[in-house]
Amino acid sequence: MTTEALVEQIHKKKSFLCIGLDTDLEKIPSHLREEEDPIFAFNKAIIDATHHLCVAYKPNIAFYEAYGIKGWQALEKTIRYLNSKHPEIFTIADAKRGDIGNTSTRYAKAFFEDLEFDSITIAPYMGKDSIEPFLAFQNKHTILLALTSNVGAFDFQTKKVNGQELYKEVLETSRTYENAQNLMYVVGATKAAYLSEIRKIIPNSFLLVPGVGAQGGSLEEVCRYGMTNQVGLLINSSRGIIYASKETDFAKAAAESAKRIQVKMLGALDDLNRN
Amino acid sequence: MTTEALVEQIHKKKSFLCIGLDTDLEKIPSHLREEEDPIFAFNKAIIDATHHLCVAYKPNIAFYEAYGIKGWQALEKTIRYLNSKHPEIFTIADAKRGDIGNTSTRYAKAFFEDLEFDSITIAPYMGKDSIEPFLAFQNKHTILLALTSNVGAFDFQTKKVNGQELYKEVLETSRTYENAQNLMYVVGATKAAYLSEIRKIIPNSFLLVPGVGAQGGSLEEVCRYGMTNQVGLLINSSRGIIYASKETDFAKAAAESAKRIQVKMLGALDDLNRN
Repeated sequence: MTTEALVEQIHKKKSFLCIGLDTDLEKIPSHLREEEDPIFAFNKAIIDATHHLCVAYKPNIAFYEAYGIKGWQALEKTIRYLNSKHPEIFTIADAKRGDIGNTSTRYAKAFFEDLEFDSITIAPYMGKDSIEPFLAFQNKHTILLALTSNVGAFDFQTKKVNGQELYKEVLETSRTYENAQNLMYVVGATKAAYLSEIRKIIPNSFLLVPGVGAQGGSLEEVCRYGMTNQVGLLINSSRGIIYASKETDFAKAAAESAKRIQVKMLGALDDLNRN
Repeated sequence: MTTEALVEQIHKKKSFLCIGLDTDLEKIPSHLREEEDPIFAFNKAIIDATHHLCVAYKPNIAFYEAYGIKGWQALEKTIRYLNSKHPEIFTIADAKRGDIGNTSTRYAKAFFEDLEFDSITIAPYMGKDSIEPFLAFQNKHTILLALTSNVGAFDFQTKKVNGQELYKEVLETSRTYENAQNLMYVVGATKAAYLSEIRKIIPNSFLLVPGVGAQGGSLEEVCRYGMTNQVGLLINSSRGIIYASKETDFAKAAAESAKRIQVKMLGALDDLNRN
């Protein structure tokens, strides 16, 4: 999917919500466990109930990998369902991969070509030749970890390198990579105050923003400091939406929770269009 | 496996060789492609021919993931074969994972408990709460990327943070994590000159060293600067061993190639025992 098509969807749906499919067998409603594939059954119900309120879904690959081959089958069914039923949805493989050259190309093929995800999250530590193999894929997007929403982000990401924080060095250096136009970045909402600084380095890139809600980040702040005139934001919410209820009404509850966020986004988009 | 048991195996086999199972359908001998599971057939033949010459095997997870569910089945068969037939072998899941809290725990369970790997490679960018969940597993080892052997290593890893290179900051900070005794580190052989500096920070930790051979690193230099009195080194070789021949004699050729490295290691271990 092109960035233009993503922006078009955002305006059409009045939403820049991404729903994280962190599907956990221990947290899904018990009646689903009798299904042949409980993980896919849960995901399908969530997607059917929420697809009109969001523009993206982000399965966290660890949750699937944890169940071995069955998990991968559920992931494959989920992405195939999304791509066939809702091709307008932007899909993110939250894999946080990072390896060199040929190995990166393999990961890229696995996620971009075989599973047909639109994008993948990548860790920057190994540098240029671990990232460029992903960037080589046209109309596919590489979402680089810049400033994450966890406590450990302060261990290295905010340490000063060349007089500025490491995450800024990651932003600046990555802009020089071949096909850098295919880059997006992860920036945690718990660090919204950093967004105006970040926008000085990457004024137009899309940001994937986790940490709104459960982790305490504020949607209003993220929009104030991070929004561009092409929106430039995908706000992710996982647990707050998909586990809004553990009963048989879980899909309805997920839609209500997503709707509450989407209404706020509608307001932010209206403000953007007025300015 | 405990570190003590690993050291014991090294002395018993006179080898600290790790063989990388970067198994690629396009590179394995063509006659194996008729097998029901060509990847496992290849791995099994390599293991059968080389297990007495090495102390560790390291499947690069990307190579398996690239083949989807079939790849995961081949990986699972390979690790089960290793654990049942050669329980004395140290196994490394070269996954380079890194995610927060609960997600890290899921990856740890998938690799340490379900697949029963002895260790996993991890990227440090997300810090403490992305690494400690792995360290919590007893007699399992978390191999942190410190200084990798690729060109991109110079993008961030060697940049100065607090007056010293980022990779040193990673080494120092990680030593303060809970259960830090379960840490090992990836240090590329192409940067052997850095090893004496590294040994000042982590005098005893085991290092997993890629880049000997194909990538130009020297085994002698790695031993000179990196070896401890408990050895402290696992030298990895992948392509140079497993693709030594593309014909029906591939397993024999792999053993010969492994033997050439092991003979050099025998010399280094003899020197160590003399001192």
